[in-house]
Amino acid sequence: MTSTNVERTVFIVSDGTGITAETFSHSVLSQFEEAQFRSTRLPFIDSREKVEEAVAKINRCAQDTGKPPLVFSTLVNPDMAALLKDANGIFLDLFGTFVKPLEEALGMKSSHSIGRSHGSGTSQKYRNRIEAINFSLSHDDGQYVHGLDKADVILVGVSRCGKTPTSLYLAMQYAIKVANFPLIPEDFERGTLPATLAPFRKKLFGLSILPERLSEVRNERRPNSKYSTLEQCRYEVAEAERLMRIESIPFVSTTTRSIEEISTKVLQEVGLEAHIY
Amino acid sequence: MTSTNVERTVFIVSDGTGITAETFSHSVLSQFEEAQFRSTRLPFIDSREKVEEAVAKINRCAQDTGKPPLVFSTLVNPDMAALLKDANGIFLDLFGTFVKPLEEALGMKSSHSIGRSHGSGTSQKYRNRIEAINFSLSHDDGQYVHGLDKADVILVGVSRCGKTPTSLYLAMQYAIKVANFPLIPEDFERGTLPATLAPFRKKLFGLSILPERLSEVRNERRPNSKYSTLEQCRYEVAEAERLMRIESIPFVSTTTRSIEEISTKVLQEVGLEAHIY
Repeated sequence: MTSTNVERTVFIVSDGTGITAETFSHSVLSQFEEAQFRSTRLPFIDSREKVEEAVAKINRCAQDTGKPPLVFSTLVNPDMAALLKDANGIFLDLFGTFVKPLEEALGMKSSHSIGRSHGSGTSQKYRNRIEAINFSLSHDDGQYVHGLDKADVILVGVSRCGKTPTSLYLAMQYAIKVANFPLIPEDFERGTLPATLAPFRKKLFGLSILPERLSEVRNERRPNSKYSTLEQCRYEVAEAERLMRIESIPFVSTTTRSIEEISTKVLQEVGLEAHIY
Repeated sequence: MTSTNVERTVFIVSDGTGITAETFSHSVLSQFEEAQFRSTRLPFIDSREKVEEAVAKINRCAQDTGKPPLVFSTLVNPDMAALLKDANGIFLDLFGTFVKPLEEALGMKSSHSIGRSHGSGTSQKYRNRIEAINFSLSHDDGQYVHGLDKADVILVGVSRCGKTPTSLYLAMQYAIKVANFPLIPEDFERGTLPATLAPFRKKLFGLSILPERLSEVRNERRPNSKYSTLEQCRYEVAEAERLMRIESIPFVSTTTRSIEEISTKVLQEVGLEAHIY
């Protein structure tokens, strides 16, 4: 355990954006709780010259810090990957490691073409993402009720329970059109769903939250307001959950979940498991 | 090349959301252009029972399709990963493959704890993300000019050049506060930046786009309007680029780039390379 509390440099080297590799490296490295990491992403490394520059950076870092940095690579081109491997670093080949067994399993060669992962900015799949983002933005917080029939999902819940980030994430990541609609004290007094939503019952999905957490979140926005009191939050959450139960709207708690976790729960529950191929 | 045009099933098995593994598998599999894939994500597989259910699904699929499916695993727990490996599939261990060399390089053991990658919904890092999303939403399209001093970046460019998705992505992925502000014909007639932006020159970054592509995008929104004509788009793009050059605002083209690629370019150019650890 000699390396404890020593910062280790991490390079993410990619011929594309490197974002997936960065997120992946973050996930793997979070397993080493005692270590500290400083991560640098080197994107668009798509020529021999750029690989050589990356190698020089890695070597300089190894010299400056006295330790070979960790190098997560998603270089698709085997020659460029081989160049990078010669740098003074711990080479972790995210791409090459899996391409060979996949070639064997599929009985075909990979194309070794660069930067195909997010699709080009003009593909139909890409246009669908942009359209979903625009839809989710314009149907945020019940601000626009036309076109709700085109929504894939309509999230409902009390103000500040996490509807907006979840809607935008689902649109951005999965091209799913997600509207969201607040449940407010008037709805609880009336004891029914907003009339606007009645025709779309099957698309509704609820988010809930612990009142204590909701009160914290609201207090950050509007300190010392009635809206942010624990009492008001308890009332709204209890009434919203009661209404969702009466109306048979499934719901999940957002309290300790990240946007990714909430979004995954929503997809699971509404059976909209996305097939991204 | 016997497998050509046969669909292969892909399972993504994770004790967390599996989103990173899904994106990664998509990226690797896009190298096999002749194959078709059907992907199913099995998230939150965090107990022996759930692994056994996953194994049963994989085995059923192998039987039904007559081919062992591809299984991308990010199970952190080695016992659970071993269970999954026994399924009738091509086992690709995203996690285990890299943990061992990392343990050796770092001279420490990994914690094998589950589901740490996105942080809990209550951590400071997570709150920063939510705050950045709220900031970017409320400062979208120049709709709210107070608090621009708190922006990390202010994107400028003509209407529909990609400012909004880029702003939201940077906020969501990197907790960066990104405002965006349209450049409109009035600005071009006046020949100067909007006065509101003058104090924030150093935070400005431009997006541009080919007029032909802009005209397409605008036509989807407002068909047959003057706003969408190629002539108008040519005028606006030329004037916006002229203004950005005069004012020394760096800019990148969004024409054939994905949101991830545009965002990465912005981070590179403004020197805001994110250190996510």
